[in-house]
Amino acid sequence: MLEKLQLDEASLTQRLMNHRREFHRYPEAAWREFFTTSRIASQLEAMGYTLHFGDTIINREAIMGRDEELVVKAQERALNWGADLGHLAQMDGLTGVGAVLETGKAGPVIALRFDIDAVEVMESQDDSHRPRFLGFASLAPGIAHACGHDAHASIGLGVAEVLAANRDSLCGTIKLLFQPAEEGCRAGKAIAESGWLDDIDYFFAAHIGMNVPSGTLVCDPQHFLCSSKFDIHFTGKPAHAGIEPNAGQNALAAACTAVAQMLAIPRHRDGMTRINIGQMHAGDGRNVIPANAVLMGETRGENRELNTYMFQQVENIAQASAMMHGVKVKIFPQGEAIELENDTELVDLLSSIGLASGFSEVIREKDFGASEDAGYLVDRVQSNGGKAIYCLVGSDLTAGHHNGDFDIDESRMLPAVKLLLNAVSQTMVIDHSRADRAAV
Amino acid sequence: MLEKLQLDEASLTQRLMNHRREFHRYPEAAWREFFTTSRIASQLEAMGYTLHFGDTIINREAIMGRDEELVVKAQERALNWGADLGHLAQMDGLTGVGAVLETGKAGPVIALRFDIDAVEVMESQDDSHRPRFLGFASLAPGIAHACGHDAHASIGLGVAEVLAANRDSLCGTIKLLFQPAEEGCRAGKAIAESGWLDDIDYFFAAHIGMNVPSGTLVCDPQHFLCSSKFDIHFTGKPAHAGIEPNAGQNALAAACTAVAQMLAIPRHRDGMTRINIGQMHAGDGRNVIPANAVLMGETRGENRELNTYMFQQVENIAQASAMMHGVKVKIFPQGEAIELENDTELVDLLSSIGLASGFSEVIREKDFGASEDAGYLVDRVQSNGGKAIYCLVGSDLTAGHHNGDFDIDESRMLPAVKLLLNAVSQTMVIDHSRADRAAV
Amino acid sequence: MLEKLQLDEASLTQRLMNHRREFHRYPEAAWREFFTTSRIASQLEAMGYTLHFGDTIINREAIMGRDEELVVKAQERALNWGADLGHLAQMDGLTGVGAVLETGKAGPVIALRFDIDAVEVMESQDDSHRPRFLGFASLAPGIAHACGHDAHASIGLGVAEVLAANRDSLCGTIKLLFQPAEEGCRAGKAIAESGWLDDIDYFFAAHIGMNVPSGTLVCDPQHFLCSSKFDIHFTGKPAHAGIEPNAGQNALAAACTAVAQMLAIPRHRDGMTRINIGQMHAGDGRNVIPANAVLMGETRGENRELNTYMFQQVENIAQASAMMHGVKVKIFPQGEAIELENDTELVDLLSSIGLASGFSEVIREKDFGASEDAGYLVDRVQSNGGKAIYCLVGSDLTAGHHNGDFDIDESRMLPAVKLLLNAVSQTMVIDHSRADRAAV
Amino acid sequence: MLEKLQLDEASLTQRLMNHRREFHRYPEAAWREFFTTSRIASQLEAMGYTLHFGDTIINREAIMGRDEELVVKAQERALNWGADLGHLAQMDGLTGVGAVLETGKAGPVIALRFDIDAVEVMESQDDSHRPRFLGFASLAPGIAHACGHDAHASIGLGVAEVLAANRDSLCGTIKLLFQPAEEGCRAGKAIAESGWLDDIDYFFAAHIGMNVPSGTLVCDPQHFLCSSKFDIHFTGKPAHAGIEPNAGQNALAAACTAVAQMLAIPRHRDGMTRINIGQMHAGDGRNVIPANAVLMGETRGENRELNTYMFQQVENIAQASAMMHGVKVKIFPQGEAIELENDTELVDLLSSIGLASGFSEVIREKDFGASEDAGYLVDRVQSNGGKAIYCLVGSDLTAGHHNGDFDIDESRMLPAVKLLLNAVSQTMVIDHSRADRAAV
Repeated sequence: MLEKLQLDEASLTQRLMNHRREFHRYPEAAWREFFTTSRIASQLEAMGYTLHFGDTIINREAIMGRDEELVVKAQERALNWGADLGHLAQMDGLTGVGAVLETGKAGPVIALRFDIDAVEVMESQDDSHRPRFLGFASLAPGIAHACGHDAHASIGLGVAEVLAANRDSLCGTIKLLFQPAEEGCRAGKAIAESGWLDDIDYFFAAHIGMNVPSGTLVCDPQHFLCSSKFDIHFTGKPAHAGIEPNAGQNALAAACTAVAQMLAIPRHRDGMTRINIGQMHAGDGRNVIPANAVLMGETRGENRELNTYMFQQVENIAQASAMMHGVKVKIFPQGEAIELENDTELVDLLSSIGLASGFSEVIREKDFGASEDAGYLVDRVQSNGGKAIYCLVGSDLTAGHHNGDFDIDESRMLPAVKLLLNAVSQTMVIDHSRADRAAV
Repeated sequence: MLEKLQLDEASLTQRLMNHRREFHRYPEAAWREFFTTSRIASQLEAMGYTLHFGDTIINREAIMGRDEELVVKAQERALNWGADLGHLAQMDGLTGVGAVLETGKAGPVIALRFDIDAVEVMESQDDSHRPRFLGFASLAPGIAHACGHDAHASIGLGVAEVLAANRDSLCGTIKLLFQPAEEGCRAGKAIAESGWLDDIDYFFAAHIGMNVPSGTLVCDPQHFLCSSKFDIHFTGKPAHAGIEPNAGQNALAAACTAVAQMLAIPRHRDGMTRINIGQMHAGDGRNVIPANAVLMGETRGENRELNTYMFQQVENIAQASAMMHGVKVKIFPQGEAIELENDTELVDLLSSIGLASGFSEVIREKDFGASEDAGYLVDRVQSNGGKAIYCLVGSDLTAGHHNGDFDIDESRMLPAVKLLLNAVSQTMVIDHSRADRAAV
Repeated sequence: MLEKLQLDEASLTQRLMNHRREFHRYPEAAWREFFTTSRIASQLEAMGYTLHFGDTIINREAIMGRDEELVVKAQERALNWGADLGHLAQMDGLTGVGAVLETGKAGPVIALRFDIDAVEVMESQDDSHRPRFLGFASLAPGIAHACGHDAHASIGLGVAEVLAANRDSLCGTIKLLFQPAEEGCRAGKAIAESGWLDDIDYFFAAHIGMNVPSGTLVCDPQHFLCSSKFDIHFTGKPAHAGIEPNAGQNALAAACTAVAQMLAIPRHRDGMTRINIGQMHAGDGRNVIPANAVLMGETRGENRELNTYMFQQVENIAQASAMMHGVKVKIFPQGEAIELENDTELVDLLSSIGLASGFSEVIREKDFGASEDAGYLVDRVQSNGGKAIYCLVGSDLTAGHHNGDFDIDESRMLPAVKLLLNAVSQTMVIDHSRADRAAV
Repeated sequence: MLEKLQLDEASLTQRLMNHRREFHRYPEAAWREFFTTSRIASQLEAMGYTLHFGDTIINREAIMGRDEELVVKAQERALNWGADLGHLAQMDGLTGVGAVLETGKAGPVIALRFDIDAVEVMESQDDSHRPRFLGFASLAPGIAHACGHDAHASIGLGVAEVLAANRDSLCGTIKLLFQPAEEGCRAGKAIAESGWLDDIDYFFAAHIGMNVPSGTLVCDPQHFLCSSKFDIHFTGKPAHAGIEPNAGQNALAAACTAVAQMLAIPRHRDGMTRINIGQMHAGDGRNVIPANAVLMGETRGENRELNTYMFQQVENIAQASAMMHGVKVKIFPQGEAIELENDTELVDLLSSIGLASGFSEVIREKDFGASEDAGYLVDRVQSNGGKAIYCLVGSDLTAGHHNGDFDIDESRMLPAVKLLLNAVSQTMVIDHSRADRAAV
């Protein structure tokens, strides 16, 4: 059996907070986390981890929702902010980093995943908003850590630090995945298809908040939504709106028709579905029939059939709206999420260590009701014979996820770190006893 | 009687072309014409004109559709492009320039107006597009001289040059107005209300193209449309589109409802009306119920009553759409055009000098069917007892106005210059004989 | 030269009023004018006219907007009201009657046309509504003579009576067409294509009211609108709206989408266009996804191109709406109107006899702004070398045409009768002098 | 303990079929079941039941969705079909009948409820549709027993017959409720509020079909939907669509806007919601701006909060659509359904007697997913201390409920009769033993 991991809670709490506030100040949206990745990499390097970047951890073919132009700008800004040039070169345009700790002893291959991207939301300008009041508000207008991934990255660094410090007490291999582009479910598939997780025996991931109060651990969230993210481009023909109003092909009108109809896709007998058109950008002038329009949206469903039902309706409505207004239309996939089902063995494990890790309440099941890019990772691990789990770490919030007023309860990072450390530790024990049995 | 004005047609033609191609390369949209104004000012200065900038020619209170943030960026770019720092300081944030030539002799005060702004349209990337093929395509992505104001500014410089060179043959006072922000009818009212035109006896303006073929002059275009330009801001409440789809207030949906209904405002018994929503920009994320949406649009009508009918419907629809989706709405006026009616005396004048100025065909009336910011200027001149005219200088076009493929027939600038010079010259004569008669 | 026609104004005025009030009490909508036709036929027969019914005056193939089921019901009602069985048999399902008066003397073939159908509008139940107050209100709920065709039919009988009584003073041939189904422009084409008017030298038609005040004659109304009338049938699939909302194909939703988009067909550069969807009937239950929907609408345009533009948009929108909602769609033409251009010779004629016929003011031109089934008749006459005219007989109205409160000024029927009699009489004179010339 | 009830299955099966086919031929929609009620009443009378009609069983104040005009027509038709004049008089305009069988012995008061109304759906005209092939298709065009209430009424008569024949073996009181207007949930509230069920100890109701296959009994269906049924009347102003398109107030357009928006009411975080607009009827003419429009719709929700959320959105959208088009709007409630929760004691009872009653499979729970007017009845019984249950009797169907092709498996009526008889019999036993215990 393994020894208990050593950690100084007080100083770790301080460091978690510092990490989190730094990440919060420098938020970077999906596929643009160059500064964030560089900062994480520097620290992991210092701890002794071997780092993997770019194509090693991401299958470039399977990437969704990455805008080359925005990536270039993000690299510039990351440099301005002080990102490491060497790391930027290693990333080769792809954010995120995989860190490996070999213990040199036989044992399981355990992965922990932390997502690191921010959301394209304007952070609250209200003085009572804590990050603003305390001076760590977002420095990037229109981008904010309004989903708690700043905490996730910090928890990852906290876990990394303790594991590295206790290396001699561990066995097997540890793989820490600092994942980019979770928002919009844009990277999961590409990471899964890189094969970097194919040797994993145990996989752990957690999300902070999610309507779970501070102190509570939810071990086995239910009802992850399948989802398709998409951009729809309508292309018409401009014309002077005063002189020849009949001569244009109105892409904005087509987009509005499409939105109205998509929001009215009938509910489905078999369960929960969702549709959202989150953005529209159309037209170039005021007195010109608008010749272009872009919609950015997503469908969801309780299962793949339901999401497929929604997405097929979206496709049909897009086609029909285009036909109606005599414009052209093209749909570009931007992200994809599938179901996520935890392994019972790991649900039992988390249930058993929750209280000891500092949670005051441990709940087994609760509705999730959203989509998670981890679905692809969990699915990959499981289909290679590994076990995987995704759990929820409660945190009182000041506003819902993706809301500009969103803020977390920072004190909830420590129990998350301890939970994951205990999970790693216990998994190594379980695996050993299993190995022992196998050896008999 | 005045002497004939001296000009070297060949070299003037070359200079007009050079001017036009320079303006075409450096297009600047409404209220952002800092480089353009500076370039014009430099040359007028060299010719000996007295220049008026900023508040002297523009009533700041009456400005519409000017975005301070874009103005700041435009100033930066103008500096990058080589604008004169001194001129920028004189402009004090307001583009356009008024130039005065005092002959020192008694005579009428004659104004000529040239609009100088570009349109927010992406210029054709097609290699067969002449400005691209010949290397003077727009250097500002998304902005282009797709309405011919580059030619107007050039014609203005051509006229200025000849008048200055012939100063001794002239009498009275010449005022040249290089007007900003004609697109969207954003500056006319503010210029009129500055009083700079209040002493004008004769006012001339011209537009190139407008579906009139090369060689033709239309002296008295009919049916100028009254117009209201507006931005509509919808503000709702964001929410996670997967977790609590019912909790948001969907500003994008409200905007789409509004667009659909506005495009369906009933036609009016009493005459032509127009409605266009040229742009929509809504939402910040993909999986967030969009909490903001901006529409940019315009109404038109054959007369003020019809335009008022349209605009009141727009206001009502905006309110009702907001109510329907539980969002807030605010309408911001961005421009305003009124009718334009030429003085018969000047129509007769242009009719009589058209052929001599190099036009092959002179037509008296033709439908205009669009709006013109000059309406406010003409109205001001006329209400102070002056005479005013706005005419059309034919030019074959490669595509309609405001279309990315738009290009003019550059050879049509010279006849325009000659027409205006003859008009000035004739007006001085007429006025003299009138003065003589008065003196008798 | 012809003698002056003899008539007793006082007793004729009384008879015109009696006719009109009877027609008003028994209104019959398009293609259902069995009682009306029978009443007219009985009186014409008594006057000595030869009558033509059914296929002789109507090309059955070219009929539009005739509903067999409604026709059968209308025949039953006509019998109840006291229609003549013999006439009904002669009509063979097709309403309207053509009456011929041969003078036996050489002379022109002159046609006068009177339309006889009512409108599907609920007559005002207000006690101050004159037909109700005086006891001649519509006996058919939902149908009313709210367009003045009751007056037209009466004027026709008045003209018929005087011509028959003065037969010996006349020359040539008189053809009186009591036309069915003018509303919706459903019969004009079929009558034209029957050939019954192919020998006509002079054709006269008039409409009472049309925003022309009592006492005024408009000889040459302008801007008749081309129009297409249509029904659109959407057919989907029903489903229980609670149990399987996704299983239906919503025809009502498709129809609503279509309506919204059709009302938003862009205005056209080249002139006035119109679109109206006057009725929708959709669905059979409350908790069933509606599987059927019928739209009844019309387009108009200042000329054929404009109307075609509108109708093609309607067709496209119908198709796209159906595609969008996964339903089937079929468009059924229900009526068609073309332009109408009067012959100058006849405009001059009417202008010259207006005052003598009892009008206090004679106007040459005025905008019509609506559609007229007479367009097809006029076109047919003209294309066979005849002359034709359609004029407006002023009448103060209590409400607009097709409004339930509509009522005419009955005293305006007599001048209309006199105008047409004078026109007939003058035409015979003109024709004679022409014939004389030809004979030389 | 009670004796076993005597019945001859073969002859009863034949009578059930005859009843059902008669009811099927003479379908009557909600509140119009005069013939149906009369036929049922005649037979119950003959069996010896005491009958209650009209206000005794229905609180007239709480009635929803009853159209007086249709009621009058339905009475005429019922008379034509042969309804009993005496019964019609007793009904006093209110359909449905309550039948009471007093055994004269102490015992529980047991109610059984059978709904008797048909649906406004056009029955299939296909020759392969069994009712058509066998000659018992609906004689009322547009109305059909497409929900199985013909079978319910027949089962009720079958149960009534056996109970009456076995009167001496029974104790307590039997109340049979032949309920009108279940479709649209229009009568339940009014019946509950009449108080006729206030003395009930045990209440039983069943529905045939509902996606449960032949042979299966579902004892405790789950998720009954709360629902609000409503009509929305828009009232605008007519105008000639060609002459003054701007002068009308378009009620049809307002209704279309409302439909589009209502179908797009956002899904709700907390559970299943539904919206349907089942009918629209708008406008009177083709070339008149339509001045009236009626929508007939319903909302549903898994619980009262969700239904309230939906209905409030409907109200808001109706108001905003009216405002948008300048028309007036009024919403008329037409029906209301609440939740339904069975008593476990009775679920256990049915579970225990299902196989013995002739079912081959007995399932405890299954989603219902629709609304049931019985909710109000069950709620009333329970709130007075009684026990109540509503179960599903499987039947293979040829098409979904409310579909024109719907037909049931007639052989499933007998097991339903036996189940209810056994339930009555068992309930009497249970109650006796309870009474015995109480007596001790």
